[in-house]
Amino acid sequence: MSMKESLKRLSQIKRLIRVARGLERADLVIKNAEVVNVLTEEIYKADIAICEGLIAGVGSYSGIEEIDAKGLYAVPGLIDAHTHIEMSMLTLSEFARVVVPRGTTAVVADPHEIANVLGKEGIKLLLEESKHTPLRFFCMVPSCVPSSPLETSGAKIGIEDVEELLKYENVLGLAEVMNYPAVLNCDDETLSKILICDIVDGHCPKLSGNDLNAYVAAGIESDHESIELNEAKEKLRLGMRIMIREGSAARNLKALKDLAGNRYVMLVTDGDRDVVDLLNEGYLDYVFRRAIEEGIDEIKALQMLTINPAEYFRLNLGLIAPGRFADIVLLKDLRRFEVSKVFVNGKIPEFKKYNYPEWAKKTVKAKKISPKDLEIRSGKVRIIKVYDGEIVTGEVVEYVEGIDTSRDILKAVVVERYGKGNIGKAYVKGFGLKRGAIAQTIAHDAHNIVSVGASDEEICKAVNRVIEIQGGIVVTDADKFLELKLEIAGLMSDERAEVVADKLKRIRDKIKELGCKLKSPITTLSFIALPVIPKLKVTDLGLVDVERFEVVDKN
Amino acid sequence: MSMKESLKRLSQIKRLIRVARGLERADLVIKNAEVVNVLTEEIYKADIAICEGLIAGVGSYSGIEEIDAKGLYAVPGLIDAHTHIEMSMLTLSEFARVVVPRGTTAVVADPHEIANVLGKEGIKLLLEESKHTPLRFFCMVPSCVPSSPLETSGAKIGIEDVEELLKYENVLGLAEVMNYPAVLNCDDETLSKILICDIVDGHCPKLSGNDLNAYVAAGIESDHESIELNEAKEKLRLGMRIMIREGSAARNLKALKDLAGNRYVMLVTDGDRDVVDLLNEGYLDYVFRRAIEEGIDEIKALQMLTINPAEYFRLNLGLIAPGRFADIVLLKDLRRFEVSKVFVNGKIPEFKKYNYPEWAKKTVKAKKISPKDLEIRSGKVRIIKVYDGEIVTGEVVEYVEGIDTSRDILKAVVVERYGKGNIGKAYVKGFGLKRGAIAQTIAHDAHNIVSVGASDEEICKAVNRVIEIQGGIVVTDADKFLELKLEIAGLMSDERAEVVADKLKRIRDKIKELGCKLKSPITTLSFIALPVIPKLKVTDLGLVDVERFEVVDKN
Repeated sequence: MSMKESLKRLSQIKRLIRVARGLERADLVIKNAEVVNVLTEEIYKADIAICEGLIAGVGSYSGIEEIDAKGLYAVPGLIDAHTHIEMSMLTLSEFARVVVPRGTTAVVADPHEIANVLGKEGIKLLLEESKHTPLRFFCMVPSCVPSSPLETSGAKIGIEDVEELLKYENVLGLAEVMNYPAVLNCDDETLSKILICDIVDGHCPKLSGNDLNAYVAAGIESDHESIELNEAKEKLRLGMRIMIREGSAARNLKALKDLAGNRYVMLVTDGDRDVVDLLNEGYLDYVFRRAIEEGIDEIKALQMLTINPAEYFRLNLGLIAPGRFADIVLLKDLRRFEVSKVFVNGKIPEFKKYNYPEWAKKTVKAKKISPKDLEIRSGKVRIIKVYDGEIVTGEVVEYVEGIDTSRDILKAVVVERYGKGNIGKAYVKGFGLKRGAIAQTIAHDAHNIVSVGASDEEICKAVNRVIEIQGGIVVTDADKFLELKLEIAGLMSDERAEVVADKLKRIRDKIKELGCKLKSPITTLSFIALPVIPKLKVTDLGLVDVERFEVVDKN
Repeated sequence: MSMKESLKRLSQIKRLIRVARGLERADLVIKNAEVVNVLTEEIYKADIAICEGLIAGVGSYSGIEEIDAKGLYAVPGLIDAHTHIEMSMLTLSEFARVVVPRGTTAVVADPHEIANVLGKEGIKLLLEESKHTPLRFFCMVPSCVPSSPLETSGAKIGIEDVEELLKYENVLGLAEVMNYPAVLNCDDETLSKILICDIVDGHCPKLSGNDLNAYVAAGIESDHESIELNEAKEKLRLGMRIMIREGSAARNLKALKDLAGNRYVMLVTDGDRDVVDLLNEGYLDYVFRRAIEEGIDEIKALQMLTINPAEYFRLNLGLIAPGRFADIVLLKDLRRFEVSKVFVNGKIPEFKKYNYPEWAKKTVKAKKISPKDLEIRSGKVRIIKVYDGEIVTGEVVEYVEGIDTSRDILKAVVVERYGKGNIGKAYVKGFGLKRGAIAQTIAHDAHNIVSVGASDEEICKAVNRVIEIQGGIVVTDADKFLELKLEIAGLMSDERAEVVADKLKRIRDKIKELGCKLKSPITTLSFIALPVIPKLKVTDLGLVDVERFEVVDKN
């Protein structure tokens, strides 16, 4: 692990040495902690001396400030090896305020949501914000913005953007290469992006056999999409790092738990921790408890959240040892991960609100729509079928003469929001709304305005309200609106997590009241526009047959 | 692991992908091998497809060339994480010819012997030679040349040399920081060298407690000097990589074997494989067998010689997986490490002699000496005491009036060989020579001419002969000479390993015949001049008291 990142000045290293030797008092000593060593898999009592934000020594020390940690376990701060902060609907600062006190002190994030809206400037915004929060924020440069030519995004991340962003501190490599067909088909731009990055994350659900070999041989080193043990095992055998995803919706730990103990295996959220769950259940602390629930040994569970990601990303973290960043969590109870205190850079973290610039709050450039914009051919049509809890869709073909709630045939529309004004329309089955509409600017990956509703009028009302508030989630029910403003890039709220969670709960209750039986209708709706996940989708360009990889109906 | 080192061209990665997908035939396919997976700790049958020198895929493949490996185990080429090539007395090319066919395909070398003689030009010479040998040669820049101001070396490696050498391909970081007092005392130059290197090896025998914490906090990441389990465990707990040394003389595996299985633990030779043992017993293949003998599981033993060093040094090696260098060893028997075939870069390696430039063969600039140069005060004197098999010396004080073989009081002299002409002299006990003398240009670390003899005349004869042949080992017995020329920097022979081993055996027999009962008199003599290992030593500057760290008698 390079010390460069942590030790930049000779004076700093000298002080660290003197403190470690006991010749000078440390800034802070955590006394008598039960140190959990995730490398040797031992727990022993020791003092942890901290100075210059780093661990100087583990042994017997005295400090200018001392904290008695008798009976408390000291574990390294938890690291999420793969997440998307924007999916929390919180700003990075607010996200940090929620997760850091629960023991997560570092994330490796793929900011590809904001990148689809604001391009590299959006990524730089997060990098800038990260300087003002105690959460250690590492960034992978999104590899697939836009997701495909089948939708209109707000920006593109090209090879020259990747090059530019790699020069920023804490930018580690290339984020999940979702476009695996591009890799397999030797697409020049995709391969060039891979070649210039030191660390390259993957994303290859169900890829197997020779094609998987090719994907790995191309230089892609990790995957977080395995849902079955055999799938993950095949990838691991080929030297891929396996990130086991355990989130609010995607729950792969049960199936993959046998991989615990392998150095190439990590636990990640993939951004899939709903803000309500975040507040109620926790973040990686919750994931750790899930691992314990599945019968995984405490230290092996910790390894997947500390030293394993630290080794992969070459971070000076993940172990309570001299020279590493003093990101330490004190626990009252190890198995329950009951946090007593958290230190980042050897300090009790402080949280501030970050003020986003106005340009990041003015991202919805669409014009208001009216019912005649939503006209759609009737007759025998291909209808999108959504399934509860899945992002994959199916297809049914039925004879349709407009919205018909009695047969659960609703309309889904996607309104381009970056100034082009395209509107894509399709019929959809599965939402179950009896009245009202939902519209939102969370619509993977381009994050246009997506809406589903029981009438054209309601859809228009919802969409137009989203435009008015410059992004967010709106539910209409006749004359009533319920809304959650997501003014930052149309993805994140400027409010506190508790407020966001509360509004979200009300919106969900309302959606249920409107007749929808889906567990996570907002999530389901957000994926209806993603044209790289099978099978039938709708983007601003029209109805997309993902398997044929083309727009099949522009309506 | 960065792919940069292996994949430089888009055309190369494209071919790799096509071969992996099975769309093109591989250059070579190793069919039906029992693949030993050191990551998942499994063994399974598969084909290994190779193209562009890399592994394209592990699965089912066909190739332009195919080799049937039915019944053979395929393991990754072994990696020595810490060695000194010069100590074999062979050129790198000749060393490679001996070790590669035995399954060692990569070494991480600290060329600090040649650096003491020829400085950075000597290191560049090895780097240049390495391009012409199939052995993968990674280099750590020597951190402590000269070892101390208490001897005269041929060169100095300063901070600017470290900076220059780091730019060379395959130079990975800073070699063992032996001068741990300099670290603990915050020496500017030492700390500056550490700060500019990504990977920093350590060397800290018996360092413990707070001082060990300080040494680690300074950014030093490994140690190969542990001889007791508790010592190694303390270091490992602090996050140090433990290199277990198992050589011809230093044998630490028995004591440290319990550490096998930890990802931070490696097996190394530290250069301590005598050429005779190399030919008779092997190199890392021998070390592997020793591990098996000690009851270590085969795959855990392999991990310490493959994936563990590869992870530490971030090498695209150590695992049979797509995208990694195709350095593969086929074994008839796994536990006995019986080699059938070795591939480096996917090819059967070929070996050539490397022709060293003349300037590297003219390094002994000393003038011939005569007995009057060796005059030494008589009376009550401090006498160096050597112990069999140890590099630490002791001290006895006796009344002396010149060499007295009946009391085993001989003379040891060090003749500076870089043009200054200093001669250091001392009495020594423990060699047991009854007649004759030994002189050699292997004399850690400065590699001046060191000699021990039963008379001043014999010492002069031996030293002068060493000067005549421009380096090597000479034994005199009255009018007879036995010699091994080490013309390259006075350290390495230009001859084949078998010839070197044969001459060395004769020299050893002769030394025994002269009355010496030491197991390794040449090694013992080579360390008598090293002023950083306790207790009493002799350098070209005189008698050195290592604990006082000064020349105590210039005679």
